[in-house]
Amino acid sequence: MIDQVPTLAQLVKQLQQIPYLASKNVYRVAHYFLMLDQARVQQLCKIIIDAKMQVIACQTCFVWKEKERTCPFCDSKRRDITVICVVETWQELMAIEKTGGYQGLYHILGGAICPLNGIGPENLTIDPLIKRINESVREIILATNQTPEGEATASYIASKLKDRSLKISCLARGIPVGSTLEYMDRVTVFKALSERRPF
Amino acid sequence: MIDQVPTLAQLVKQLQQIPYLASKNVYRVAHYFLMLDQARVQQLCKIIIDAKMQVIACQTCFVWKEKERTCPFCDSKRRDITVICVVETWQELMAIEKTGGYQGLYHILGGAICPLNGIGPENLTIDPLIKRINESVREIILATNQTPEGEATASYIASKLKDRSLKISCLARGIPVGSTLEYMDRVTVFKALSERRPF
Repeated sequence: MIDQVPTLAQLVKQLQQIPYLASKNVYRVAHYFLMLDQARVQQLCKIIIDAKMQVIACQTCFVWKEKERTCPFCDSKRRDITVICVVETWQELMAIEKTGGYQGLYHILGGAICPLNGIGPENLTIDPLIKRINESVREIILATNQTPEGEATASYIASKLKDRSLKISCLARGIPVGSTLEYMDRVTVFKALSERRPF
Repeated sequence: MIDQVPTLAQLVKQLQQIPYLASKNVYRVAHYFLMLDQARVQQLCKIIIDAKMQVIACQTCFVWKEKERTCPFCDSKRRDITVICVVETWQELMAIEKTGGYQGLYHILGGAICPLNGIGPENLTIDPLIKRINESVREIILATNQTPEGEATASYIASKLKDRSLKISCLARGIPVGSTLEYMDRVTVFKALSERRPF
C-alpha cells in the first residue's frame, strides 16, 4: 500500500537507515513528521544541516566541536591536562561527562578493533593518541567498553604505551549500583569478587 | 560540555522531541547525522520536507496519501467497499496491511477517546465515519487497540451505529501465535478460554 504514496515510502526508507531507531518505530516517527507544522519541519531540517556544517571533530582529541570555536576540552583551561580518558565514541564521552566526576581530557578512538568487521588499529585514532601523549600527561584511563572488542583495543593501546613512564588505568568492574547479585551474570559476579576492595 | 557546542546541543534538543526515539539513543542518532556525507544530510532533509509538503490525509478515510494522487484505498477498484476497518492510527493500518489478509477499506480515527488527556469523540474522526457509512457498507470492523481507551472508543462507535443494519465485529482476542500460556497474563488466558472456538 505504501508504494502508492511514494513520497512517504521514501521518508520511511530514509528513517529505516537511521541506526537505533527500532523498525517498529519508523512508522511512528514518519507519522510524527507528517503531523508537525510545516514551519517546525523546516526548522528541524535547518538544524540538522547546520549541525552537519558547523560541527567538526577536534583534530587532537576527536571530540565534536564547533568549527568556529576552540575545543571544549583541549583548549579549556579548567581541564586537567595530565590525564587522558580514552573512549570508543562520543556517546561514551557524554556518559562520563554526565557523571560530573571527571575533569581531565579525552581521546575518542572512533570505535574498537574488530577484525571481523575489518576494523584494525589503523582505522582508529590510536596513532594520533600515541603522538599527543607528551611529558605533561601522567595517566591514561582506558575506558573502552567491556566487550571483547573494547578489551582487545585497550590491551593493544596498553602494549603500545608500555615503554612510557605513564600510569595506565581502566574502569572498575563489578556490580552496577542498584543491582542485585541474583540477576547479575556470573562473569560480573566473579570479577566483582576477585577485584573486591576494602570496605 | 555540550553547551560549548551549541549547534550540536540544538540538534540533540530537536531529536529529543521525536517520540519513540529512546533518550539513550539521541546521542547516537546525532552522531550518525554528523558522520553522514554532507550530500546525504541534504537529501535526508529534502525528503522530510517533500513528505511534509506532498503527503496529506485523505478526507474520507484519513489515510496518508499523495496530494496529487487518489487515495490508495477509497479510490481503488481492487478494494472491497462493503467493509470498513476502523483503526486508531496509520501505524495500526500498516500492521494490518502487512498481513496481506484484508482487502476492505479503512478509517483512521486519529487516536482513542481519553478524557484524562482531553480527547473526546469530537477530537476524533468519528462523525466523518458515521457520515461515510452508506448503503453499500455491510460490515464495520472495530480494530482499535485492546487498551481501556481503545475499547471505550470501540463501544462508543458501536453505540452510535446500533440502529443501522450493519454487521459490527472486532478483532479476536487470545493467545498470540508463538506464545506460551505460562508467560501470558491471566486476563488474556481468561479471554482465550471464554472465547474459545471449535478446533
